[in-house]
Parts: sequence; C-alpha cells; structure tokens
Amino acid sequence: MKTPEADFVPWMGAVQARMEAVLGRLLPPAQQAPMRLHEAMRYATLEGGKRVRPLLVFAAGELAGAEERRLEIAAAAVELVHVYSLVHDDLPCMDDDVLRRGKPTVHVEYGEATALLAGDALQSLAFQVLAEHRLADDPATQLDMVRTLALAAGSRGMAGGQAVDLESTGKRLDLPELEFMHIRKTGALIRAAVVLGAACGAPLAEAERARLDRYAKCIGLAFQVVDDVLDAAASTATLGKTAGKDSKQGKPTYVQAMGVARAREFAEELRRDAQAALAGLGGRARRLAQLADFIVLREF
Amino acid sequence: MKTPEADFVPWMGAVQARMEAVLGRLLPPAQQAPMRLHEAMRYATLEGGKRVRPLLVFAAGELAGAEERRLEIAAAAVELVHVYSLVHDDLPCMDDDVLRRGKPTVHVEYGEATALLAGDALQSLAFQVLAEHRLADDPATQLDMVRTLALAAGSRGMAGGQAVDLESTGKRLDLPELEFMHIRKTGALIRAAVVLGAACGAPLAEAERARLDRYAKCIGLAFQVVDDVLDAAASTATLGKTAGKDSKQGKPTYVQAMGVARAREFAEELRRDAQAALAGLGGRARRLAQLADFIVLREF
Repeated sequence: MKTPEADFVPWMGAVQARMEAVLGRLLPPAQQAPMRLHEAMRYATLEGGKRVRPLLVFAAGELAGAEERRLEIAAAAVELVHVYSLVHDDLPCMDDDVLRRGKPTVHVEYGEATALLAGDALQSLAFQVLAEHRLADDPATQLDMVRTLALAAGSRGMAGGQAVDLESTGKRLDLPELEFMHIRKTGALIRAAVVLGAACGAPLAEAERARLDRYAKCIGLAFQVVDDVLDAAASTATLGKTAGKDSKQGKPTYVQAMGVARAREFAEELRRDAQAALAGLGGRARRLAQLADFIVLREF
Repeated sequence: MKTPEADFVPWMGAVQARMEAVLGRLLPPAQQAPMRLHEAMRYATLEGGKRVRPLLVFAAGELAGAEERRLEIAAAAVELVHVYSLVHDDLPCMDDDVLRRGKPTVHVEYGEATALLAGDALQSLAFQVLAEHRLADDPATQLDMVRTLALAAGSRGMAGGQAVDLESTGKRLDLPELEFMHIRKTGALIRAAVVLGAACGAPLAEAERARLDRYAKCIGLAFQVVDDVLDAAASTATLGKTAGKDSKQGKPTYVQAMGVARAREFAEELRRDAQAALAGLGGRARRLAQLADFIVLREF
C-alpha cells in the first residue's frame, strides 16, 4: 500500500474522534425514554466505522473554507443516514447479517422490531440535525442541503440502489447495470457528503463544482468496487463484518463481473480520474486527494 | 352521529381528491427504475385512507390564510411520513398485519424487503418534498418546518411511541403511561400537521399559536382514543383493517384501561376541549372545529 502523507492519519484520527463526540451529543441519551430504542440507536452509531462519509464532508469543507462546527453537523447527518441503512440492510428480510463493525448487529442485540424502529428514527434524526443547526449563511442554501440528502437517501438514491441489489441477487449483471446499482447504493450518499461539505463554506465557482462532482462520482464508485474486492479477498476479522458474503448470497459484484485483478485495476483507474478532477483546485483539495488514496488503497 | 355542517363533506372530498392527485405527482412514476420499489411506494400511498393529517394541514392553513399550493405540499410530506409508518408497522416483526385500507398490506403484496425499503424511501421523500418547494416566505421558517416534521417522526415522536407500544404488549399501562405512548405514537404527527399547515401562512400571534397547539394536542389524543374504541367495537369490513387486533395482541389501549363507555366519554371531553381552544379564533377556525367533530364522531 502506498504510504499516506505524514499528516493524513492524524487528521483522520482527529475527525473520527470528533465525530464520535458529536454523534454522542446529537443522539438522544440512553437514559431518556423510550430507553431501549435510544440505546439501540446509540449502539448502532457509536464506536464504529471508518467514518468515510464524515471524512469526505470535512475534506470538501476544507476546499470551500467552511467552519468546522458546521461541518461536524453536516457530517453527522450524512453518517446517521448511512448508519440507518446498515441497520436495515442487516435485518433478516434483507442481508440477514449478524456481525457489523466487529459487533453483533442491532437486530441480534435488540430484536428485529427495535432495529427497524432504530433505523427509522436515525433517518428522522439526520434531517432534524440538518435543519436545526445553522449550516449556511443563507437558509435557502441549507434547504437545498436537506433536499440533497433526501434525494441521496431515497428511491432514486441509496434505497433505490438497495432495491436493485435485492432484485439482482442470483443474477449476473452487465457492467452498465452494475454501475446503475452502485452509483445509487453507495455512490449517492458519498456524493451527498462531498456536496454538503462544500455547501457549508463559501459558494464555489461553477467549474469548481463540476470538478468536485466528477471527483465525487469516481470516488463513490471506487468505494464500492473496493468493497467488492475486499469482500472476496479479505477476512471477516479484518473487515469486522462477514467476508465472502456477496458470492455466498449470489450478489452481482465487480469481482464477479470482471475478476479480482481487473476490479483492482478499475478501482485504480477511478482513483486516478478522481485525482485528475481535483487538478487546478490547488492545496485546498489536498484532503480530498488523500481520501481518494485512502478509499482505494484501504485493506479493510 | 351528529350531522356535519352541510359544507364539510364536500370540502373533505375535495381535499382528499386533491391529495390523491398531488401524491400521485410527487411519487416517482411506477415506470421508472427501480420499478418494483416505485410501484410499492405508490401502492402504499395512493387510493386509500381518510387523509386526516392532510385535512388538518388544510384546516390550519385556512386559519393562517395560507395558499393552497403550499398546503398541498406540506400535507403530502406529513402524509408520506404517516404512510411509511403504516408500511413498517404492518411488517411481520411489528404488528404482522395483512390488511390495510381494505387491501393486502405492502409486504404481503411485494415481500418484506421491498416493504422495508418502500417505507424507508417514503420517509426520505417526505423531507425531499418539504425542502424542494417554496412553502414559506422566509426560508428559515421552512427549515423550521423540516425540523418540526423530523422531530414528530423520530424517537421522541412517532417512532418513540411505536417503541413504547412494542415494549408494552402484554402489559397493563396506567393512564399517564398510555398518554405518554399515544401522545407520541399518533399525537406527534397530528400536531405536526397543524403546525405545518399554519406555518404555510401568515405568522400567528403567540396567543393564537398557543390555542392552536392546545387544539392539536387534544385532537391528537382524541384520535387515538377513538381508534382504540373502534378497534374494539367496529368490524374489519367497516375499518378496512383488521378489527379486534389490539386485545388479541395484548396491546394496552384506552378501552382496556377504562372500558368502552368511559373511553367514548373521554374522547368527547377531548373534543370539547379542542373546540374550546379554538374559541376566539373566529370563523377562520371553522374547518378545525369541524375536523374535531369528524375525528371523534367517525365510525371508521
């Protein structure tokens, strides 16, 4: 693996620690009724994950010169949507998984009904958080952020991608079909993270926005390609979630469509495209470039 | 049943027909991929329900002199949250119900996984709709509407009420506990409907807002008390959903806590309180008063 620049890992660790604190504060206390639901929401969200989407929010915010106390809220909203999707995705009627982030999944720990409601309430909380803190100078911009997140989460975004995933189990998809699915399932929320981070700062020029969007598209797809490779090639212990699940469940993946070696190459091409899109944005885009490395070269 | 004023039923029918058209337009077309998900979302939402929450949005909007094209969007957002909650509530891991609005429930028709995702996507769509149309002169007011709906839907509102409901099955709750549950489970979204409808119009005076809120609280609780009575006393054919379910499932209800006769009286008291709260608001509150009658005196 390419060695990350010296300041990347400390920066990543600082954002991750900050998000743990912010999410802990934004989630309802476990002592507040209904306690079991609030416990389950905290269990699902805290102490886990690489926080890739929050990292992207902060990195895009740096490009736009955004205040960190705005970024932490936008990042929390995106992460809450991501966590809710994991909770629902693990349910028996979906992927039926028992392990997530190295811990038993929410429905294993709290039962299916509570897991369902915890996911539902995490989604609501994401929009609450996004609406109740000041995140942009102009409230109209902030309304647009709500819309962006809702679109990314909904049937034309993440939930739609999940639905295609579901219908495709046991089938072989061609590359355009795979891309249709993954652009929605993972890509939409990753793009939203980048857009929301930038929206917290000064308005970007049209050309800068276009570059950022190209970066986000490449990185969103790359993330999923690497996920497919890791599912096929890494161990459950390394991943903190069940490995080898895709092929066992007959899910169409990039590995199935093009083999591990070609999938790795494809991820590498996407990383180069993402970084090419950042050219001309200067040093302010440095964290975004580092994250492209991190997302593609990660081993878990 | 008290005869409604002559103009109430046509008004109600007009709002209901309008909502059918508005929801049909706001929902993704069934021909758009992922089609099965979009079909399920439309199946869950269209052709059904009394549209009580939209009616409340329109009635509160009349009090505040709001434009109808704003009200129809706010009403759609509230109704989409309500519909998503029904879809999830009917799932096997929750109430496991097969009949809703006189039709097979979504998971019976489309399978559990699609029902789960359809509910999730309906919640996202509610916030998308609320953010992407202009609903208030001041975008900051509209952000506050997003926050209101998110709070009403989340763990301190509807989802929290569902969680208490779940934990209480097979137990006997005293009246304060029952009220805690129902104020959240049903009351929160009903209050949000009233608040959102008013927010679409001219700002109300503080005293008017307080009166409206008292009305909304009474009507929200009354709605649930009447639901409990109907579940115990009406037939499945009349309700369009399974009757007698509460006692069969060991759910604590107002009927269990105080008997049918006293529960009916309690609903009647709440109706009088709701209408007393409207006194002084004049003719602009007429639809709200009529809805209090409708909610308490309905037979389905």
